[in-house]
Amino acid sequence: MTTPLRLGIAGLGTVGTGTVKIVRQKAHLLAVRAGRPIEISAVSARTRDKDRGVNLAAYDWEDDPVALAKRDDVDVFVELMGGSDGPAKAATEAALKAGKDVVTANKAMLALHGQELAQLAEDHGAVLRFEAAVAGGIPVIKSLTEGLAGNEVTRVLGVMNGTCNYILTRMESAGLPYDTVFEEANQLGFLEADPELDVGGIDAGHKLALLSSIAFGTQVNFAGVELEGIGRILIEDIRAAADMGYRIKLLGVAQMTGRGLEQRMSPCLVPAASPLGQLEGGTNMVVIEGDAVDQVVLRGPGAGEGPTASAVMGDVMDIARGLRVTTFGQPAKTLSEAQPAQSAAPAPYYLRMTLRDRPGALAKVATLLGASGISIDRMRQYDHADEAAPVLIVTHKTQRSALNEALDAISTTDVVLGDPVALRIEEV
Amino acid sequence: MTTPLRLGIAGLGTVGTGTVKIVRQKAHLLAVRAGRPIEISAVSARTRDKDRGVNLAAYDWEDDPVALAKRDDVDVFVELMGGSDGPAKAATEAALKAGKDVVTANKAMLALHGQELAQLAEDHGAVLRFEAAVAGGIPVIKSLTEGLAGNEVTRVLGVMNGTCNYILTRMESAGLPYDTVFEEANQLGFLEADPELDVGGIDAGHKLALLSSIAFGTQVNFAGVELEGIGRILIEDIRAAADMGYRIKLLGVAQMTGRGLEQRMSPCLVPAASPLGQLEGGTNMVVIEGDAVDQVVLRGPGAGEGPTASAVMGDVMDIARGLRVTTFGQPAKTLSEAQPAQSAAPAPYYLRMTLRDRPGALAKVATLLGASGISIDRMRQYDHADEAAPVLIVTHKTQRSALNEALDAISTTDVVLGDPVALRIEEV
Repeated sequence: MTTPLRLGIAGLGTVGTGTVKIVRQKAHLLAVRAGRPIEISAVSARTRDKDRGVNLAAYDWEDDPVALAKRDDVDVFVELMGGSDGPAKAATEAALKAGKDVVTANKAMLALHGQELAQLAEDHGAVLRFEAAVAGGIPVIKSLTEGLAGNEVTRVLGVMNGTCNYILTRMESAGLPYDTVFEEANQLGFLEADPELDVGGIDAGHKLALLSSIAFGTQVNFAGVELEGIGRILIEDIRAAADMGYRIKLLGVAQMTGRGLEQRMSPCLVPAASPLGQLEGGTNMVVIEGDAVDQVVLRGPGAGEGPTASAVMGDVMDIARGLRVTTFGQPAKTLSEAQPAQSAAPAPYYLRMTLRDRPGALAKVATLLGASGISIDRMRQYDHADEAAPVLIVTHKTQRSALNEALDAISTTDVVLGDPVALRIEEV
Repeated sequence: MTTPLRLGIAGLGTVGTGTVKIVRQKAHLLAVRAGRPIEISAVSARTRDKDRGVNLAAYDWEDDPVALAKRDDVDVFVELMGGSDGPAKAATEAALKAGKDVVTANKAMLALHGQELAQLAEDHGAVLRFEAAVAGGIPVIKSLTEGLAGNEVTRVLGVMNGTCNYILTRMESAGLPYDTVFEEANQLGFLEADPELDVGGIDAGHKLALLSSIAFGTQVNFAGVELEGIGRILIEDIRAAADMGYRIKLLGVAQMTGRGLEQRMSPCLVPAASPLGQLEGGTNMVVIEGDAVDQVVLRGPGAGEGPTASAVMGDVMDIARGLRVTTFGQPAKTLSEAQPAQSAAPAPYYLRMTLRDRPGALAKVATLLGASGISIDRMRQYDHADEAAPVLIVTHKTQRSALNEALDAISTTDVVLGDPVALRIEEV
């Protein structure tokens, strides 16, 4: 056996503990596969005295992750603390500056500082890898960066937040309203400390921004992601979508358009019979479309100790084997600054609005849609007991800008109660 | 830009031509991603004068692929000729002996000679990669070898022959018998020159043997794959399976059991609602199960110019970037010689047999199954007009050996007409 690869692991939560377990329990298998032993030199976490179900006695302890990152006996700094700034970023920078490779699961840090960190890594001859940051155990970063490197990517899309998918599929299967299922998910510990990270689409938006960068050779631009959460989805929307052969998913879509890079993370309707439509519970799915490969669909667990540690170890094993690919698949300084395009690609839309029950209300809506060049594919008015009539409309393909114009015009009339809901219907 | 990576491409059929097109049309993109230009020095094929829809004038021509493999201006020999032996093997060996890296789509060659070629590559410091040999455009070799390298793999299974999946799904959707759809597929050019490679499961069996080797660290052992084709599947089997919530797929399954390595490529029933059950047409799907990641499902086009060339280019780009992983994920001499185990894992089975319509016939069958320790979960006897009564039986979990014993005993009686059909029900 040749020189061991020595890890310093910062952060001993679920993923950190899972990573330590794999290194300990599969030492022989890993060494055979990598051609060299994988060892842990030292670890760091906020609290030292805590039973994590794994024996850490053999490893040095560092209170300060920056000190851990700089240790001479650490070849790879494994950053599993989380947080876009603060200690995670400080320690990552310290490691890279010392020429040490970094493996991280930190989507927030990379979504906000990816460009700068990738450049820092390259300046110091280090690699920075982040398979665990996107879609848990699915080797999607590797597939996109390496396996499909011969493709011009045309679109990347997927379900990248298991909690939102759990909430939406549970609303449908149990017939429960959003608030009830949200509370259930909270009780089950599925939600982040700040739930808006999940249900507001922020966490998934971070992941999409990372995929976009690799797919289109652009600098990570999380600020350019149009974000919309799932909080306004009613059980009625889910049922109406199902009636028409669709399911509602919090869908991330990135594509390069004539007007710039479109990145959206928003609730969308997808065909119920498509792989995305059939995705249940906390599972993630990423669809990669390229000019040569056509379409590849990757599906797997989006979170959890084992799956996320599996992704961390994939990166560690790559480094042990000498694989040194740049962070986003090409040198950081060649990544372009893409113009963000807001919903530039035309699509059909699902609209839900509540009309006052008076003569001509529907005609007025249809007229205003028509005035913005939007034609109606299907329309349904539901039974109603009081003065408010729920109406569902599916449009033909339109630009989001035209739709927004029409919805603004509709809102200024006196025929609509509350804000209309508009969900994109994504072709997959 | 640094030193270019120079290719020699042998074989200019669909995949070879597709590969040339990618190298020509995406020169800039590939160079940016790889950090160096990808060039073609020379090509070789059986016929020189043929319009392949791509300009080859800039490349030297070699009639002899072995000469191409040894050229000084070739860094990577791209073998896309096919055939397990003959020129493909001779040229691959020549390239490896000259220390040149080899990228191949040749599943037959690797399934039969993988161990020896992997060893040869290592002896000469060369890498031998074969993403395009398994499941077309899906980056499954990379996912298994690299992305999931931190897992002890527990099972690999999948649909790896698009033609068989086309035939089975078309039989179901059009209600047509096997022979008719086979003829259709032949007319459409979906079948290999020797159709038995497809419908007999040989081609898919080659792929399974390659996946097994990586998954379990064993020497490729195609002879250890239990093979059964789809030729005996009736439209009635497909309908009966559908009635019970299953679909029939030509399924490859590899798992390490207490008795040895089980590798099967045979028609199986899978739950209709599972990703495998929902797979339509020529698409491929590979499911990888590991102790850390749980389950990852990869889906994509199993063949065709673009997808297969995409896989070839993934390997080429890896080499251009300096990734040098061993052929089967660990040094060839550490691959173990696994004991082949024939259908060792117990499973429920679907049985179809035709009984003579006489009193006690069914009782005799049930008794003989019971005598081999097999209990019946469900049974159906269909309407019949003449003396022959079709009977379907679903057993509880049993060993295949016990089932074979019972079927042998049943065959020696006078109650059964023809050979019973037994299909495994695979849990996914």
